[in-house]
Amino acid sequence: MDNQLALFYGLSVLTAAIAFAFAAYLYLWVKKQKTQNARIQEVSALIKEGANTFMRREYGVLAKFAAVAAVLILILLPSPIWNGNILDNLSMAIAYLAGTVLSAIAGKIGIMVATLSNGRSAEAAQEGIKPAFLVGFRGGAVMGLLVVGCSLLGVAAVLMVTGNASILLGFSFGASSLALFAKAGGGIFTKTADVSADLTGKVELGIPEDDPRNPAVVADNVGDNVGDVAGMGADLFDSNVAAMASALVIAQSLSGDYANVSMVFCYAILGLLSSIIGIAAARIGKHGNPTRALNSSTYVTTAVFLVLTAAATAIFEGFSWRIWGASATGLLVGVIIGITTDYFTDDTKPIVRKVARASGSGPAFTILSGVSYGFISALPAMVGIAVSALVAYQICAPMGDGYAIFGISMAAVGMLSIVGMIISNDAYGPIVDNARGLAEIGGLGEDTIRTADELDSAGNTVKAVTKGFSIGAAGLTVISLLGAFMSEANAALAAVGKELIVGFDIMSPTVFFGILIGAAIPAVFSAMLILGVDKNAQRMVAEIHRQFDSIEGLREGKEGVKPDYGRCINIATTGALKELIPAGLISILATVVVGLIGGPQAIGGFLLGNIVSGLLLALFMSNSGGLWDNSKKYIESGQEGGKGSQAHKAAVIGDTVGDPFKDTAGPSINTQITVVSLVASLLSTVFVQFHLFG
Amino acid sequence: MDNQLALFYGLSVLTAAIAFAFAAYLYLWVKKQKTQNARIQEVSALIKEGANTFMRREYGVLAKFAAVAAVLILILLPSPIWNGNILDNLSMAIAYLAGTVLSAIAGKIGIMVATLSNGRSAEAAQEGIKPAFLVGFRGGAVMGLLVVGCSLLGVAAVLMVTGNASILLGFSFGASSLALFAKAGGGIFTKTADVSADLTGKVELGIPEDDPRNPAVVADNVGDNVGDVAGMGADLFDSNVAAMASALVIAQSLSGDYANVSMVFCYAILGLLSSIIGIAAARIGKHGNPTRALNSSTYVTTAVFLVLTAAATAIFEGFSWRIWGASATGLLVGVIIGITTDYFTDDTKPIVRKVARASGSGPAFTILSGVSYGFISALPAMVGIAVSALVAYQICAPMGDGYAIFGISMAAVGMLSIVGMIISNDAYGPIVDNARGLAEIGGLGEDTIRTADELDSAGNTVKAVTKGFSIGAAGLTVISLLGAFMSEANAALAAVGKELIVGFDIMSPTVFFGILIGAAIPAVFSAMLILGVDKNAQRMVAEIHRQFDSIEGLREGKEGVKPDYGRCINIATTGALKELIPAGLISILATVVVGLIGGPQAIGGFLLGNIVSGLLLALFMSNSGGLWDNSKKYIESGQEGGKGSQAHKAAVIGDTVGDPFKDTAGPSINTQITVVSLVASLLSTVFVQFHLFG
Repeated sequence: MDNQLALFYGLSVLTAAIAFAFAAYLYLWVKKQKTQNARIQEVSALIKEGANTFMRREYGVLAKFAAVAAVLILILLPSPIWNGNILDNLSMAIAYLAGTVLSAIAGKIGIMVATLSNGRSAEAAQEGIKPAFLVGFRGGAVMGLLVVGCSLLGVAAVLMVTGNASILLGFSFGASSLALFAKAGGGIFTKTADVSADLTGKVELGIPEDDPRNPAVVADNVGDNVGDVAGMGADLFDSNVAAMASALVIAQSLSGDYANVSMVFCYAILGLLSSIIGIAAARIGKHGNPTRALNSSTYVTTAVFLVLTAAATAIFEGFSWRIWGASATGLLVGVIIGITTDYFTDDTKPIVRKVARASGSGPAFTILSGVSYGFISALPAMVGIAVSALVAYQICAPMGDGYAIFGISMAAVGMLSIVGMIISNDAYGPIVDNARGLAEIGGLGEDTIRTADELDSAGNTVKAVTKGFSIGAAGLTVISLLGAFMSEANAALAAVGKELIVGFDIMSPTVFFGILIGAAIPAVFSAMLILGVDKNAQRMVAEIHRQFDSIEGLREGKEGVKPDYGRCINIATTGALKELIPAGLISILATVVVGLIGGPQAIGGFLLGNIVSGLLLALFMSNSGGLWDNSKKYIESGQEGGKGSQAHKAAVIGDTVGDPFKDTAGPSINTQITVVSLVASLLSTVFVQFHLFG
Repeated sequence: MDNQLALFYGLSVLTAAIAFAFAAYLYLWVKKQKTQNARIQEVSALIKEGANTFMRREYGVLAKFAAVAAVLILILLPSPIWNGNILDNLSMAIAYLAGTVLSAIAGKIGIMVATLSNGRSAEAAQEGIKPAFLVGFRGGAVMGLLVVGCSLLGVAAVLMVTGNASILLGFSFGASSLALFAKAGGGIFTKTADVSADLTGKVELGIPEDDPRNPAVVADNVGDNVGDVAGMGADLFDSNVAAMASALVIAQSLSGDYANVSMVFCYAILGLLSSIIGIAAARIGKHGNPTRALNSSTYVTTAVFLVLTAAATAIFEGFSWRIWGASATGLLVGVIIGITTDYFTDDTKPIVRKVARASGSGPAFTILSGVSYGFISALPAMVGIAVSALVAYQICAPMGDGYAIFGISMAAVGMLSIVGMIISNDAYGPIVDNARGLAEIGGLGEDTIRTADELDSAGNTVKAVTKGFSIGAAGLTVISLLGAFMSEANAALAAVGKELIVGFDIMSPTVFFGILIGAAIPAVFSAMLILGVDKNAQRMVAEIHRQFDSIEGLREGKEGVKPDYGRCINIATTGALKELIPAGLISILATVVVGLIGGPQAIGGFLLGNIVSGLLLALFMSNSGGLWDNSKKYIESGQEGGKGSQAHKAAVIGDTVGDPFKDTAGPSINTQITVVSLVASLLSTVFVQFHLFG
């Protein structure tokens, strides 16, 4: 290790510590805000308790899964233990567990703060938009800071201790395992609860949306937190770690000096610092516009990052302007993808209005137009990712062999540099969404509800942008994971004295075989999650019926009679994990089968097919879902006949279809791709040694 | 040219002549069948007139398009005319025009016979299932024989005259241009008419489905013919020509002797002969099962083809058993894909029933479950294509350089060998569908309608299988088109003394850039077609309202008052072509832009991305659409509450969504892929000489 790298290890730890300290400060600030309304306190406590039940159960199942995986890693990875490298296997297993644990801690604390902030934001809304916004935003920022701090700390620690970037793939796989449970499991959970609560409450009994008699109502609110706070946080923890890990694997394979490794840490550190500055700078006037406040924080973070990394490039020896250019390209393309996503899902823009108008002709037209615009919306994002990869490559290719793909991985690091800010904005959404509901439950009056509504609507708008951003980032990350896989496979090939891989040729039928199967997997994975929501909702509806039938006085709302919220939460949780596991296993098994049939060449194709169709479907489903949601809201605001009209009924059906698209399947595909990419890299030794063809 | 090849040229012409003679015999047989019912004669004549109106308008627009394309080809392709090869350019332009004209003739005659058969099949149904089946099947067989005969004759003639397989790409492009208009244009037409007729007739006025007062009702019946007979025929003409052309381009690049070229013709000839035998052998008992009759003809054709090609391999010098194996693999996988498609869309199998049950919970669940199973249904077909490509490659690779990809192209030729049978079965569908309607209009009584129903239902079942088959064949064909593109690009590279392409490496960002953009194109293309149906339907609904308002006595059904059917057909036609052109142009423009940015490497990636996402989306949309259609029919047969139930209403919405999926967008993607592949091959010289990066 050289001095420069030692410096950056030290700075990584220091910056993570600053992030944690700032998070602690924000946490205490939120906690200090007053909370007086008894009703709000009660329901808020129920939500917190429910979220904890889910997290406990989820982590329980995850612990078993992780234990099995850790034992397998200990025996088999990076190479079978009987080959003699016991220390490497032990490091890998520990790194894997560290990845799951750090992500779990970030998620747990994030949920804690989110469920603390919702009620306080609701009560603060009585005093105006400014204090309510600050409570919501700072609550979300705690999650953002923790996720980025933990990922930076973890990556630095693993590399510092082992000196071997390949071990980072184990850490990254740990993060992915957790993300699979948190994001896909949380996604099934939240939509199960949402659908069941609506079906039994609003439709069957005709009671209001948040009526506390409904045993599913707490689960519904819990769902917002576990899906959008913990799930999204785990997803971005995963992407962030994967981007750093693949950049570091490639950087270590590049050359003898450590400048490239240092640079990866430097960019990650400056990204976190920029997010801290952006969060601290978030301001809103007394009658300010919360959407503008959120977006301007993002732009501040982006600008600060570009300036700081430019300064670092000028100062530090061995840092290249070309790499800076690649990274800046990634970041700018991320912003552009966010803006185009916004165009397709914002109700002040024409697309949402066209879908709302089409709804007037019936639900089939809501679906057809939403699907069509969802398909079209994939184009700009895919062009953006394609162009940024091409530009990053062209900028860095003159630096020598291997630098071009390093440039792409640094474009991914650049795109994810502002992830702290992205998570803060994203976690703000469910907090103020909960706050709006609590303001209604607590009877805080029309003015307060209007204020909370405005905050909520800003959350929805910003969410579309951040979602586009995180899919784009995942796209670039997996390209560099493909590079990391090639590095790993080549190390394994070199070890057995076989010819190295120079690439994956489309015209090779082994590669092509992998591509076609890889492309089908995200479709099957999303289908299984969507069907899982459906099956799980049926179980939960049965439980709700059981409670209404067997708990005396519940239906009538007798004083003191309460439903068993925990049981509903338990059922939703168990079901979510039960439905998730086959979908996850099929993806992993397909990887193993393809690898054993066609070896590393087929796996290269498999990963490509997976990435390409995964990106397409994730963009399609997320954007269609967002589009339908906002079309419904647009109609509810009084357009195209308003609430209760034919168009509204059609739009509600569109929204129901869109819910599992945008909150379960769409965003889980990211995680599926990362998991598969890491499994491939980890098993590269196995695939190199045993395969049928190719 | 050697003697063997001369023999096969002669046999090609002879076999085509036999096919035409047999088609003429079947045509005269159908014409001879009695037709007495005046009402049926009247409506049948209206359908015929409408189909002719559409064809006239379509061919009119196509003629302009083709004229422009032919001039461009004359000037630019295969290389700019100022380079001096005027004769090549002239051959290419003439071949292009021949491709459009031959396909157009086959389509025109096919429509003529189909509109002749529908009424006769209805009347024959009075005498039982056997005569009615034979009229429907033989009417469809005329189309099948013409399409395959014309494609064999055209390909043989072009190669015989020019001796240059590259010129065949021009012929193939002509077939694709026509297919784009016929399939995508016909697809928009048929769904425009369907939706408009339903919205104004059934929903607004409450008149029955086939009421002759509705100005759109003839257009609706016309749509079945132009979409499913002419469109499907042009699509398979296109696939068949493309498969032969790419196999021949690769065969010519292989070696000095002509055995491989001879073999391609030999297989095509034997495929046509097998189809003739299969058609002649089609039998049904007096109370027979029409589905079984159709399927057993397919199996007979398959078996005959395998035996005949094995015999040819044993007899002819230079024919290889390995190639026979590749071709047999393609054919068998085609059958397997057909069977799995059937599993997902047949109402005697569990999937259709699950979607019908889900419909009981409301339309959102119809959509969600249909989308999910549609996604899952793509997996077996994609695995099938992947495995057949891999196996064909492995079988043929030992034969030497270039033979592996030739093996894949022969797998495609094998899969398409029974295309004559496939088209016959496919064209049978709309004929008996029309027959069912005509039996009702003609008042032929309940027994006859029940017979017609049974024939119609067999048509729907078989259609699902043939559709899966044709998508699978298109998948393999475009892989060999990718090989043809590489041959063409290398010829162009050799001409300018540049380094040849050995493959397209995924890890090259130029290739990757092409892949991502290529993958987005089928999504955008299908979205534009679906939105086109929507816009066009709005125009047609306005015209229907105008007629009801301005034609006195029409609404009341006054004696002698007739709506202006031709005007509706004209509007649907103009609109279909208007909506289709931007979708087609965007696909072609994207190819050109990607080629000019990244050169042949980016185009290789672009074609791959296009194939992969195109296959996925085509399978998803065709199968979801078929699934929804059959779920609705299953419920209408009295299950899950039957007609008028909640489940039925939901299933109708699913069916409306599925209509443009399965009849417009899904099957048009095949054509889009072929068009783009051929444009890429034709422009390879341009891309080799001018591009920004790569």
